[in-house]
Amino acid sequence: KAIEEVLFFPDSQIACKDHFVGEDGCSRENCRFTHEHNSLSRLYEFIDGARETLDVCVFVICCADLGDLLILAHRRHVKVRVICDDEQIDITGSQIWKLRKAGIAVRTDNSSYLMHHKFVVIDGHTLLTGSFNWTRQAISGNQENLLALNNRRIVRLYGREFEKLWRQFDPR
Amino acid sequence: KAIEEVLFFPDSQIACKDHFVGEDGCSRENCRFTHEHNSLSRLYEFIDGARETLDVCVFVICCADLGDLLILAHRRHVKVRVICDDEQIDITGSQIWKLRKAGIAVRTDNSSYLMHHKFVVIDGHTLLTGSFNWTRQAISGNQENLLALNNRRIVRLYGREFEKLWRQFDPR
Ligand SMILES: [Zn+2]
Ligand SMILES: [Zn+2]
Repeated sequence: KAIEEVLFFPDSQIACKDHFVGEDGCSRENCRFTHEHNSLSRLYEFIDGARETLDVCVFVICCADLGDLLILAHRRHVKVRVICDDEQIDITGSQIWKLRKAGIAVRTDNSSYLMHHKFVVIDGHTLLTGSFNWTRQAISGNQENLLALNNRRIVRLYGREFEKLWRQFDPR
Repeated sequence: KAIEEVLFFPDSQIACKDHFVGEDGCSRENCRFTHEHNSLSRLYEFIDGARETLDVCVFVICCADLGDLLILAHRRHVKVRVICDDEQIDITGSQIWKLRKAGIAVRTDNSSYLMHHKFVVIDGHTLLTGSFNWTRQAISGNQENLLALNNRRIVRLYGREFEKLWRQFDPR
């Protein structure tokens, strides 16, 4: 079935991760996050839907909820690989060291130029790509877009670029 | 005919605008730009191919060659509209005042959040979207992607978002 969706941001409220993709749902009495569907909740669902591989090539990853979803995927034996920009890994809120500590392989560009991509390939068949970095500001402040597609030809081109960069950024 | 192309950057050399889209080609004796096809030359062709409308919604526009192509489109009576981030219009190399002086309508977000999109809708039927800002660094330094599509459903969603932001950023 064709996936052709566009997620636009900002969301007016932050989607509750526990409600949308938690095993037991949300147990907060007065949850300050929204339980209504929005762009972020859809992104949660895409990431949570990964069964085999998650190839994440995103400039900056600072959103703890999205970082947690990568760790959950890793724990359910999805092969998670992350490429991000080397100058972004130590900024406030960066999820990179948490991901590495959890056992997820992360590679960076080691260049003063930007590893500026913001795309994800899920299970080799679904692509998310757009302007959207994984930050709180992108979710609830900025004007952003994220396109979801499963067009085979396009997904293959992004998958191939991921493999090229993964080899290129091998630290050994 | 389906358009399903991905342009990846950086290009190893800057494509010669005059060679690819100039009326008379390139007349430089020893041109320091490349006359071989690459990602930027393809982007030139997309913009130069506009016949009716160019809806440009791009965070930062600093590349003079791309700015010039918008002005050429405007002069051949393409309706060019530009949305960009208000904090980027005065940075070094910004093309925005040049565009406005040429008579192109430019609107900005007037917000401390980012108008972070990087998409273009050409003639209402072709979409370019990705991580790519219109800067020299994005062309020849950074890792970037730009997806070109003419899927009607997807293009319509981006077109609608453009209209929404165009109204939202009306200064009057
Ligand atoms: Zn909740
Ligand atoms: Zn030339």
